[in-house]
Amino acid sequence: MRRMLVIGIGAGDPDQVTLQAVKTLNEVDVFFVIGKGEVKEDLVRLRREICERHIEGRDYRIVDVEDPERDRTAPDYPEAVEAWREARSRRVEQSMLDELGDAGTGAILVWGDPALYDGTIVLLDRIRARGAVEFEYEVIPGVSSVAALAARHRVPLNRVGGAIQLTTGRRLAAGFPAESDDVVVMLDSDCAFRHLDSDGLDIDIYWGAYVGTPDEILISGPLAEVGAEIEAARAVARRRKGWIMDTYLLKRR
Amino acid sequence: MRRMLVIGIGAGDPDQVTLQAVKTLNEVDVFFVIGKGEVKEDLVRLRREICERHIEGRDYRIVDVEDPERDRTAPDYPEAVEAWREARSRRVEQSMLDELGDAGTGAILVWGDPALYDGTIVLLDRIRARGAVEFEYEVIPGVSSVAALAARHRVPLNRVGGAIQLTTGRRLAAGFPAESDDVVVMLDSDCAFRHLDSDGLDIDIYWGAYVGTPDEILISGPLAEVGAEIEAARAVARRRKGWIMDTYLLKRR
Repeated sequence: MRRMLVIGIGAGDPDQVTLQAVKTLNEVDVFFVIGKGEVKEDLVRLRREICERHIEGRDYRIVDVEDPERDRTAPDYPEAVEAWREARSRRVEQSMLDELGDAGTGAILVWGDPALYDGTIVLLDRIRARGAVEFEYEVIPGVSSVAALAARHRVPLNRVGGAIQLTTGRRLAAGFPAESDDVVVMLDSDCAFRHLDSDGLDIDIYWGAYVGTPDEILISGPLAEVGAEIEAARAVARRRKGWIMDTYLLKRR
Repeated sequence: MRRMLVIGIGAGDPDQVTLQAVKTLNEVDVFFVIGKGEVKEDLVRLRREICERHIEGRDYRIVDVEDPERDRTAPDYPEAVEAWREARSRRVEQSMLDELGDAGTGAILVWGDPALYDGTIVLLDRIRARGAVEFEYEVIPGVSSVAALAARHRVPLNRVGGAIQLTTGRRLAAGFPAESDDVVVMLDSDCAFRHLDSDGLDIDIYWGAYVGTPDEILISGPLAEVGAEIEAARAVARRRKGWIMDTYLLKRR
């Protein structure tokens, strides 16, 4: 039976892979690298480095799967997204059929933890449901970008007995959550914290970009004081590298 | 300068430690094991195994720090908890002074990730604030019990663009969160999901105990159908081993 592995490789620091991930990397015949449209050469290079560093005495191949073009002009946006996901899953499916023998082991490497704001599990479920290629799959958990961020700031996510909300930039822009004083924001391409009334809310922010890599930037403090500094640092870093991976934690006092 | 390390060692599977954690374990002179009152021999044994397995050619010591008795009869509960925390931090402080030389490196090993429902960071901040023992400290992130649970069930925590709430059993007992359809429940000693109107809410549960260890139990399905099975399995396992480490994810359909 074909086998697929979804392997969490940590948030950026190559030493943040687990021993389980290293063992699993050494069982892989084919690594599928699914393109993000806009090429993130650095991220592809980091993945290759992880393979080179941790795989010993085993032949493996790295296969690129190009993402389909996304039709951003389509009037019905959810339908366009669904069509794009379907097309993408067919490309991965075809690649599995072409590249993986009947008993081969394939893998998809995921930054951070595969359960957190990543589409790979849903992608494989979709391919399995279609039934055109039979395979088993396993998920290897990883150190999440959230854990990496909190560790560098040496700050716990929760307060004693409290709840934590993990949310997106888009949702945060609509207001600070009511049910939690500790909020982790992912997928924020536009500094959604700008929309919060930070003076009124008395919020501390713990922000980090490229956490665990040589480019790491960490900024923390009262949002009202450091918000603008984070916006500026983010814009500069993004321009310089061409892409940014960042996350932040907001704590209401 | 004295140095302390807070090291996340994963959720139970000894292969779920990161390479960074292994490197860091090999810099430690003294491991402080802070007792939980009720002795969790198995957990102490697992920590010792992790040290024995991953530390090579280095002398290290393991020092037990007994937890103070907690006065559960005190009328002012928050004050009693504060007094207990203060007493506990003084014991750790004293142990650091006694056991760690001026330039020694100590460590506290934490199950899962140190930022998630663990008190070690706050404990060290408290000791540093008092100023009786000077030290630097670092946090090494780990694979959280939440990531380990989701991986074994092969289920993402969030839906596309959705929020996730991490909360406690006590809070869940007061009702299903309004701001998120995906809820992770920690620190639940009493199956708080029993209090939810599961028929009305149409919830799936993904439960796991001792995840990643040979005792692992996984149960999932519609809460209305498997809730009682989880309660029973949990009671049996807890009786047999004397303790239980479990977590679950609730997904509203």
